[in-house]
Amino acid sequence: MQYSARKVCVTSNKLPGTDRRMDPTSFETHPSRYHHWKLAVDGDIARLTMAVDDAHPHKPGYELKLNSYDLSVDIELADAIQRLRFEHPEVKCVVFGADLDRVFCSGANIYMLGLSTHSFKVNFCKFTNETRLYLEDAAEHSGLASLAACKGTTAGGGYELALACNETMLVDDGNSAVSFPETPLLAVLPGTGGLTRLVDKRKVRRDRADVFCTTAEGIKGKRAKDWGLVDHLVSRTKWDASVTDAAKALAAKQTVVRGPAFALPALDAKITSKSGERPTRSIAEGDAEVSDKLTYKYVELAFDHALRTAALTVRGPDAAEDPDAVAKTGTQPWALRAFRELDDALLRLRFDYPEINIVAVRTAGNPDHVKACDKALFDSQSGFAREVRLLQRRVLKRFDNTARSLYAVADNADSCFTGVLLELALGADRFYMLIDKDEKIGVETSVANTGFFTTSSGLSRLESRFYGEPGKVQKVLARGVEGPIPSEEAEQLGLATIAADDIDFEDELRIAIEERASLSPDALTGMEASLRFVGPETLETKIFGRLSAWQNWIFTRANSTGAHGALTLYGKPERPQFQWKRT
Amino acid sequence: MQYSARKVCVTSNKLPGTDRRMDPTSFETHPSRYHHWKLAVDGDIARLTMAVDDAHPHKPGYELKLNSYDLSVDIELADAIQRLRFEHPEVKCVVFGADLDRVFCSGANIYMLGLSTHSFKVNFCKFTNETRLYLEDAAEHSGLASLAACKGTTAGGGYELALACNETMLVDDGNSAVSFPETPLLAVLPGTGGLTRLVDKRKVRRDRADVFCTTAEGIKGKRAKDWGLVDHLVSRTKWDASVTDAAKALAAKQTVVRGPAFALPALDAKITSKSGERPTRSIAEGDAEVSDKLTYKYVELAFDHALRTAALTVRGPDAAEDPDAVAKTGTQPWALRAFRELDDALLRLRFDYPEINIVAVRTAGNPDHVKACDKALFDSQSGFAREVRLLQRRVLKRFDNTARSLYAVADNADSCFTGVLLELALGADRFYMLIDKDEKIGVETSVANTGFFTTSSGLSRLESRFYGEPGKVQKVLARGVEGPIPSEEAEQLGLATIAADDIDFEDELRIAIEERASLSPDALTGMEASLRFVGPETLETKIFGRLSAWQNWIFTRANSTGAHGALTLYGKPERPQFQWKRT
Repeated sequence: MQYSARKVCVTSNKLPGTDRRMDPTSFETHPSRYHHWKLAVDGDIARLTMAVDDAHPHKPGYELKLNSYDLSVDIELADAIQRLRFEHPEVKCVVFGADLDRVFCSGANIYMLGLSTHSFKVNFCKFTNETRLYLEDAAEHSGLASLAACKGTTAGGGYELALACNETMLVDDGNSAVSFPETPLLAVLPGTGGLTRLVDKRKVRRDRADVFCTTAEGIKGKRAKDWGLVDHLVSRTKWDASVTDAAKALAAKQTVVRGPAFALPALDAKITSKSGERPTRSIAEGDAEVSDKLTYKYVELAFDHALRTAALTVRGPDAAEDPDAVAKTGTQPWALRAFRELDDALLRLRFDYPEINIVAVRTAGNPDHVKACDKALFDSQSGFAREVRLLQRRVLKRFDNTARSLYAVADNADSCFTGVLLELALGADRFYMLIDKDEKIGVETSVANTGFFTTSSGLSRLESRFYGEPGKVQKVLARGVEGPIPSEEAEQLGLATIAADDIDFEDELRIAIEERASLSPDALTGMEASLRFVGPETLETKIFGRLSAWQNWIFTRANSTGAHGALTLYGKPERPQFQWKRT
Repeated sequence: MQYSARKVCVTSNKLPGTDRRMDPTSFETHPSRYHHWKLAVDGDIARLTMAVDDAHPHKPGYELKLNSYDLSVDIELADAIQRLRFEHPEVKCVVFGADLDRVFCSGANIYMLGLSTHSFKVNFCKFTNETRLYLEDAAEHSGLASLAACKGTTAGGGYELALACNETMLVDDGNSAVSFPETPLLAVLPGTGGLTRLVDKRKVRRDRADVFCTTAEGIKGKRAKDWGLVDHLVSRTKWDASVTDAAKALAAKQTVVRGPAFALPALDAKITSKSGERPTRSIAEGDAEVSDKLTYKYVELAFDHALRTAALTVRGPDAAEDPDAVAKTGTQPWALRAFRELDDALLRLRFDYPEINIVAVRTAGNPDHVKACDKALFDSQSGFAREVRLLQRRVLKRFDNTARSLYAVADNADSCFTGVLLELALGADRFYMLIDKDEKIGVETSVANTGFFTTSSGLSRLESRFYGEPGKVQKVLARGVEGPIPSEEAEQLGLATIAADDIDFEDELRIAIEERASLSPDALTGMEASLRFVGPETLETKIFGRLSAWQNWIFTRANSTGAHGALTLYGKPERPQFQWKRT
């Protein structure tokens, strides 16, 4: 099978992240519409060939030369990995290659980075980091291994992609090197997990990693293999056979039962805008023409630009579904569709609505239906059900890693913080619950809360909430099997941050949201990144905590992004001028 | 015993960190010269009373009102903790109090922060973080517990100090609160470990921590205790007795045998300057009148401002010393003196020489003497010897946490990377070794390399170097007991990054240092922070990695430090204006 058709890309005349008045970012695509990758499946091996179309950047203003990438390229990559998981259960190994002669991938496009706002750069890096973690997640949990077949220059983000694969093969042609030129050439970090993966995942000796990361031309041949930078070193003549052999060997090791296949349909997000209406107060950047609501089947995200707040609602399933049975009919079960919709909404929020400081998260629906869906999903032995569970887990992590204040709110009799939806309340920064007289409002637990939905730290959200107090986790789960937990009891059990009756609730919540929206977005991002991830650290938390935080700092520094900074001046005749103070 | 005499402080007319042309920072003091603390020892209880003299800031330009602190206050605190460890082995609990009626400590002085350079702010936070970690280190390893007796407002860094104590007592007077007002009032983080200690050390529920960190007025009374923010809540009438009881109870739990006492003498650093001479090339900030060399008995740090490099040399002991026997004569043994000198040199480097990008680290001396000192120090069961070992460990961590590129160099027959001094080579970013024909140059291991000298991650430096390959650690240690390991073999064992003979060595090293000095200081700081700390994360690495990196980023953002930022405008009539983009 070979996807190849291309459709003309509609672009605006705006640079990425330079203006809120831009077209909405679409995170949906399909192999038939890829501009930058070719996906071919042959038996249990898939080939994802990077063939970046330099004339189709995410936004005009730069060319994607030498298989460099931007957000569009990475959106297609994320789509390809997702489709391999759901649509191609026969595939056991995906081979990353390139259709250029001497270049595998030259990394993130530097002109694009130089032209982007700080906020865009940070969110772009976060998205690419998540995509690379998903590749590792597929290898670890879905029996879908990956091989980076680097037949040429493998630089920066290109090498970071290779590091996220199970194995990396480099051509031994006396010329092709792997490299991290970011620090010496651009005065920034290899920010897509590279530094962490070098020393923590591949266990490259840290003094060698230091040499490697400051050697712009990179390291090739025997030294690259001796230092553990690549797994295989192969001549050009033996290349094709060696790639196939290595891919087959990786495929042969996979024992996870997958399938049946399920074709992921389009999400059909509706973006509605109250044209003619204007926010009552000026938002920081003027009266930009922005959309007011994203509507999906189960998810809605509505914005109040004047208050810099958003309201996210996730609706539960319409019935007690068996996801396998529903999928067999070609329909997306709720467990898949609702979380794909949530994922899409979170990404649009991050990229297209940077001025939204806080999101109130509500749920609606029938708790019994959620519990039934959770039970069926967790009882199922099918590969499809496992993929849905893993997707839900990834989306919940995307929620945790979204740099907006998140307040879960249960203030309606229709509220449905049950099972997998309860995870949203546990992942939020706070959980407000209304105490209603007839105790219709409450939370319910299910099998979904018992440990599978780990955060980046490896703890479940209940374990994170009651860090160091496992007895409290057990108490909640034991109580949960007895039935609904009304608001007041939820507060006593430590599930609600604040529970109040209807005399106080509305005012308290309104003031809390307005206060939060008035605080500095930067300080909140740093605070939330520190409080949300208690306990053990993992490769993942190191990437999002340590590495990304340093990169964010570096992106603000004049030495990289100032008028005379190395990133700004890349490709220009002027040499960068540095401020020499170490901090 | 009560120290009280004060000496007039000599100050310059410069603000902290605003200019390189400033007086050298002295990290040495003595209780008889304290301006801001009163140290009193009574039996096994010491009282460290914060009595900040608002007229004696570190540099003029602000007043230290309401027991707020600056670098001077923290230098005295660090000195007091160090002296309690060495000079007062009878003390088993130190009580932190204040001599103000309604204020314990109002945190870092905000005007000082507002007036300081970014580089100074970051180094100030790092030093205060280290001091608070030393307090925890004393409690964990030296049998010196601590109690924060907060009889009044305990805000920001004041509460962070309390969090570093074993126990915290808050007065229940209907008014006194603990608080972190940094995020709501200043648009920055509580950056001295507070966020991490709240959720990871004290295990405050993360949603409650979120409420606490955004409530400027803080939390008092029963709620503070219920939420785990403080350990004891005591009325004013019962205050004195309760503090004494709690201190005695903490003291009674201490079982570590300490002593004998050793009075820490002054270090007598000499700062020499080649007056009249000028750098051959302009350094970034002009021809500032700066010192050229710090000279101690065993340590020398010489600067080449034109090249932005420094040469650090640590000399080994003059004889095989028994540290207990030497200390009995009132003389500092090498093991103590050399590391106190190194500590002082590292701090001066951080604060007074920000333009130095890379330090070449050399050792000199007789390896047999180092091995003998290491053996005697580790064989000793005395409390004094344990304190010396712990001090060496802290100084080596200060070395790891110093944001400068560190290249260890063994290029002289007198080189002495042996035992505890070998840790400097293992902690450095790279280790260059000259291969000499008669193999005089090499490294030697001792008991000091077998695990006691852990980095912040909890791994030894050999374990960090060979992360995930314990066999290589064992191989080095097994080979080490057989005798000196010459350069070429050290490279084969993975100890040297680069070993070269005298045809190549000098040029290779010179070029490597010049290249490093030419790279962006910011990118190098982020890169080194990512590569140096492989493996597990701890409270300590979370503070220096995650929390500090976010704070550094926030310190560069307009919302805190811009012309209309909250930190800049604190105490002024204007309200801060924020940029609302979340990143």
